[in-house]
Amino acid sequence: MRPPAEHAADVMARAAWSRLVEPGDVVAGALLATLGAADALAWLRDVRRDVHAGRHVDLPGTGESARRLSAAAARWSTRWDGLDAERDVDHVRRLGGTVLVPGSPGWPAALGNLGLAAPPCLWVRGSRDLDRLCERSVALIGARACTAYGEHVTAELASGVADAGWTVVSGGAYGIDAVAHRVAVASGAPTVAFLAGGVDRPYPAGNARLLAAIADGGGACVSEVPPGSVPSRTRFLQRNRLIAAAGRATVVVEAAWRSGALSTAGHAAGLLRPVGAVPGPVTSAASAGCHRLLREGGAVCVTDAQEVLELIRTSAGPPGRHPAEEDGRLRLDGLDEPARRALDALPLHRGVTVDRLTAVAGLTAPELAAALGALELAGLAAHAGGRWRRIRPDG
Amino acid sequence: MRPPAEHAADVMARAAWSRLVEPGDVVAGALLATLGAADALAWLRDVRRDVHAGRHVDLPGTGESARRLSAAAARWSTRWDGLDAERDVDHVRRLGGTVLVPGSPGWPAALGNLGLAAPPCLWVRGSRDLDRLCERSVALIGARACTAYGEHVTAELASGVADAGWTVVSGGAYGIDAVAHRVAVASGAPTVAFLAGGVDRPYPAGNARLLAAIADGGGACVSEVPPGSVPSRTRFLQRNRLIAAAGRATVVVEAAWRSGALSTAGHAAGLLRPVGAVPGPVTSAASAGCHRLLREGGAVCVTDAQEVLELIRTSAGPPGRHPAEEDGRLRLDGLDEPARRALDALPLHRGVTVDRLTAVAGLTAPELAAALGALELAGLAAHAGGRWRRIRPDG
Repeated sequence: MRPPAEHAADVMARAAWSRLVEPGDVVAGALLATLGAADALAWLRDVRRDVHAGRHVDLPGTGESARRLSAAAARWSTRWDGLDAERDVDHVRRLGGTVLVPGSPGWPAALGNLGLAAPPCLWVRGSRDLDRLCERSVALIGARACTAYGEHVTAELASGVADAGWTVVSGGAYGIDAVAHRVAVASGAPTVAFLAGGVDRPYPAGNARLLAAIADGGGACVSEVPPGSVPSRTRFLQRNRLIAAAGRATVVVEAAWRSGALSTAGHAAGLLRPVGAVPGPVTSAASAGCHRLLREGGAVCVTDAQEVLELIRTSAGPPGRHPAEEDGRLRLDGLDEPARRALDALPLHRGVTVDRLTAVAGLTAPELAAALGALELAGLAAHAGGRWRRIRPDG
Repeated sequence: MRPPAEHAADVMARAAWSRLVEPGDVVAGALLATLGAADALAWLRDVRRDVHAGRHVDLPGTGESARRLSAAAARWSTRWDGLDAERDVDHVRRLGGTVLVPGSPGWPAALGNLGLAAPPCLWVRGSRDLDRLCERSVALIGARACTAYGEHVTAELASGVADAGWTVVSGGAYGIDAVAHRVAVASGAPTVAFLAGGVDRPYPAGNARLLAAIADGGGACVSEVPPGSVPSRTRFLQRNRLIAAAGRATVVVEAAWRSGALSTAGHAAGLLRPVGAVPGPVTSAASAGCHRLLREGGAVCVTDAQEVLELIRTSAGPPGRHPAEEDGRLRLDGLDEPARRALDALPLHRGVTVDRLTAVAGLTAPELAAALGALELAGLAAHAGGRWRRIRPDG
């Protein structure tokens, strides 16, 4: 445990970073992992000052990484003016909420699997023990424009999952999400809504009472963007990675051929979490995305709550924790066999091409692509100029 | 080509065998493959005579195989009295039908994959060129007790398949089968119904007009049992293997959790033919068998005719032909990689245990089980006393 003053400073610095960055900013993730949030913030302040003064800025790293960091610093700086993390934190605390950072009691260890794409902090209304809530949780997601069939099946699945003592995770949207949360609340079970906007701004407005009931009912409304933030398309898509990472499994109940729910399913698969899809009539456009997942092998067919829970029982165990939380010791529990083989085959220094890796790792191209994606998300691999290398979890 | 007189004798002998045996009798299959149908019939006549006269019967082979042959001969002999193949053949010919045997023009090469379980002959009403009809064919099957949804989807699939110039194969039953045949006939496309009873006895009676329309519309009604035979439970189940073997792919449109359609799907998988299943509402018991197939990996999710035809395009090419038709040269085209590896690992003489085989072939237990099932059905492997061995295709 860190000294309380240091933890408080880290909370404020991470709250500030959550306002400077857009969700999923892996350059910020790398900087925070390298310098710590407070020092990274001081560094950015100095860079801004030097740029304003017309002084030469000496960036760490060389070539491509320095260029990326420079571009990111310029991007982050646009939000520097008016930055007031204490005001944001106070605002959420006055609403009865809190802000969690890695190392806070209740920080969901499952998000560690996001690696450098993990959020700097989480803004939370409701229960603060997200770790416990997510430890036995299932994401039930799907289309806003769902059908009566989709609502019926969602209610069956959510009540079965809730009755078995599992948390229902979803996105707080209309349609499938709302039914999943509502049935969990009605069952007296905790449920967690990951929002794309600030937790002080219930969105959509029509779900405001539901979101309040979620926070009051032992569950939580959670966001990675600070209070006052409006949801946007990219924030919705990035929010999906939090749902996928928080749930031990993700189940798509209804989704059109192109649907945000499929992006959540893709994130879950990339995180090596099991994915389920509920079949429906082939005549229903609202099931076309589910059938697509089933057809392409992106999901297992699930038809009831029992089969949803079997997804988790038959998968590889609890989600991994972030390497940095394990004193630099690499945690491989969450990795499947192809990912382990790809990791073994990756060099630490000079990168190698995918062609070379398929040969060394003895994996097919699609297996290798999935493995590298998982390793990248876990912060264990990186690529540049078409060459891949391993990243040391301890820095 | 054999001399016409020899072929005619073979037809009569095989017609006789089709009355002596129950469908799927692999002991008869082995005897006919070894001696030829006419000599096998003469052999059985002699055995019967010797048994009646109280003389010692010297059976070929030793131990277990001799015991099996002896039991089979006793079983076949119960139907010897009144055997009159010429009468049966004349009866079907008077109805405008015919009897096909391996080597007849029009005999469907695809049935060769059944190996020793291939029928001795086929009784046919309608088109005699089953080989051409089956060359581009899809089996559309499902529950008798189907829903309006199942009927709708079957009609869509059958008309799409028919419009693309493919033959619809099915079982002539009520429900899904009837819709599949009816829509094909209405589309002016040939369709083939494999029946569990004699072709002179349309079954079920309510489909008599449909079955007549099938035979008159360029398609065929086909049975492996001789005229006058009634359908029975085992004949229905064995008939399913003919549907699975005749179709380049098998698609289950609706099926209850336990359904004969699943046995057809299992036969198709064992024959290394692609299997598709149409999803439906999880609230519909008529789709539970389809979801079971999807969930257990026994089928690919298909939602329209396009996806049905993709099943075939993405599979391994035309069905293999029976080894015996290839001058004893083994045809492996139809075998997938695990089956080839299992075949390589099988010894010709002393059998080996499954445990030993998993190690030698480097296959998991389920992969090996599927591979051995396929090899057995293809007449390339056999087991006795828990030990497996290879069978030489040339005898």
